Amino acid sequence: MFINKLIESIKEKKSSVVVGLDPRLELIPSIVKDKYFKKHGKTFKAAAESILEFNKEIIDNVCDIAVAVKPQIAFYEQYGIEGLKAYDETCRHASKKGLLIIGDIKRGDIGSTSKAYSKAHLGKTEVGGEYLQAFYSDSITVNPYLGDDCLKEFVEDIEEYEKGMFVLVKTSNPSSSQLQDLEVEGKKIYEKVAEMVNNWSDQYIGKFNYSSIGAVVGATYPEEAKRLRELMPSSYFLVPGYGAQGGTADDVVPCFNKDGLGAVVNSSRGILYAYKKEEKWTEESYGKAARDAAITMRDDINTTLEKHDKKYW
Amino acid sequence: MFINKLIESIKEKKSSVVVGLDPRLELIPSIVKDKYFKKHGKTFKAAAESILEFNKEIIDNVCDIAVAVKPQIAFYEQYGIEGLKAYDETCRHASKKGLLIIGDIKRGDIGSTSKAYSKAHLGKTEVGGEYLQAFYSDSITVNPYLGDDCLKEFVEDIEEYEKGMFVLVKTSNPSSSQLQDLEVEGKKIYEKVAEMVNNWSDQYIGKFNYSSIGAVVGATYPEEAKRLRELMPSSYFLVPGYGAQGGTADDVVPCFNKDGLGAVVNSSRGILYAYKKEEKWTEESYGKAARDAAITMRDDINTTLEKHDKKYW
Repeated sequence: MFINKLIESIKEKKSSVVVGLDPRLELIPSIVKDKYFKKHGKTFKAAAESILEFNKEIIDNVCDIAVAVKPQIAFYEQYGIEGLKAYDETCRHASKKGLLIIGDIKRGDIGSTSKAYSKAHLGKTEVGGEYLQAFYSDSITVNPYLGDDCLKEFVEDIEEYEKGMFVLVKTSNPSSSQLQDLEVEGKKIYEKVAEMVNNWSDQYIGKFNYSSIGAVVGATYPEEAKRLRELMPSSYFLVPGYGAQGGTADDVVPCFNKDGLGAVVNSSRGILYAYKKEEKWTEESYGKAARDAAITMRDDINTTLEKHDKKYW
Repeated sequence: MFINKLIESIKEKKSSVVVGLDPRLELIPSIVKDKYFKKHGKTFKAAAESILEFNKEIIDNVCDIAVAVKPQIAFYEQYGIEGLKAYDETCRHASKKGLLIIGDIKRGDIGSTSKAYSKAHLGKTEVGGEYLQAFYSDSITVNPYLGDDCLKEFVEDIEEYEKGMFVLVKTSNPSSSQLQDLEVEGKKIYEKVAEMVNNWSDQYIGKFNYSSIGAVVGATYPEEAKRLRELMPSSYFLVPGYGAQGGTADDVVPCFNKDGLGAVVNSSRGILYAYKKEEKWTEESYGKAARDAAITMRDDINTTLEKHDKKYW
């Protein structure tokens, strides 16, 4: 089961860190991209090869510190077919390096269409009797706006292929309140979604009492996270918003249960482009800078969890 | 502006028909796919080439009957990189044939990520100072769960590149009621989303008093559509659910305004695989069968609009 693999890795690495692989070409060191510009011109191919080299160096430097990577597919889709090839190879490389893959795709549609997305990222697609894999993920993010018949399609593949998903409950962005915080019969919409997620979670619980069906809960809303932790006791939380978006280690603590488990915390920009933040780093050492930032993040979260008596190790 | 182009095409073709290009390999005629299986084996390449040939034949047969095609990207994503190449080429071929492209991608994320999706499908992506196009669409579908700071990113490119979008308001699937019909201060969630969409719509109105920012409203919920028509008078509706999902011409009438405009109606399976429904068609005549089904749908909607005194021609 996905959730067992995730928690085993958390315990082994003593880490709840997820590295978000959101490549921004303009922030990738020139020493990486200039050679591809020279080779392929200013094309998507050059962009994609730069991104892939950059990602591999990051992955190789954080693979013993982070438990998972979360490539955000939008940042690859913007470079077209070539970008999506880089997405695909990034996922496969990270998987080989012992990292779990959380495909941050935020898909969701009517039943038959969700099934196609699920095949694309979790399951397999039939071609004339053969079953082939399109993209590789261990788990994905899913949008709940279309309700249970959308989620159901992903759940089927989660069961068959031992995968996982994180359903958007309370997102980290400023205007998440606009729809998600509306109140229905004394409950916020995100609480209603949490109930929906909890119903699914409870059906797929692994050996550590957690489920392969989890929730996205932004680090930027600690008060809401506290409430959501109660509503979804067995759901693992994927927590974006730490670092560049403003969330701190104290902010993410409510996402964890008393057992010190229950959440993985994502940072993208804060790790990937750490080399730009301190003078001691150069373009050449961007990988080491990322490693250093990932270690700092891991220790920051662990120390804060310990302070709140939420130690799992 | 996208909306002007759409309405001009509606008036010229006397049609509100959108053909949904949702390729299901198992339903594509053997005469198409067998030759690619022979050439490439049972691979994604064979699947993608079959889909592209099939789509082109459909497009060539409906290009004077439909105003737009709506490729559902999930059905391409499930065939990996090769599938997405077929998506890309399908969009470009349909555009050359005078059809508008509604990329049914249902994306939506936090601001910076939505910007990347928007560049991928509506705008352009910078590569070392050059601005390149990843995928071609005239408009896309967008998920509203993350609120205005998500929508804003798409709106910026809609303005700059003269594109459009349709925001999910009330979807056609059975469990759409689960979240979308919850009631907040006497208003359903889909009504709150409609107000959100209307605020954006009002800012981008073209010469026919309609906006390039529209809404997805399922044909399967005619009562709700009536209410939504009032809440978003200037938004064009993209109406899925006609045909295979159970929606009839009478069901879609409330999506239209008194001027006979205000909605385009999508059918996917009912047109694409029409050759399987009647004995007079063979595998060879699947294109003609699709054309025939599209004509029947166009006339069905027009006749019904006329009956309800909603004639635009």
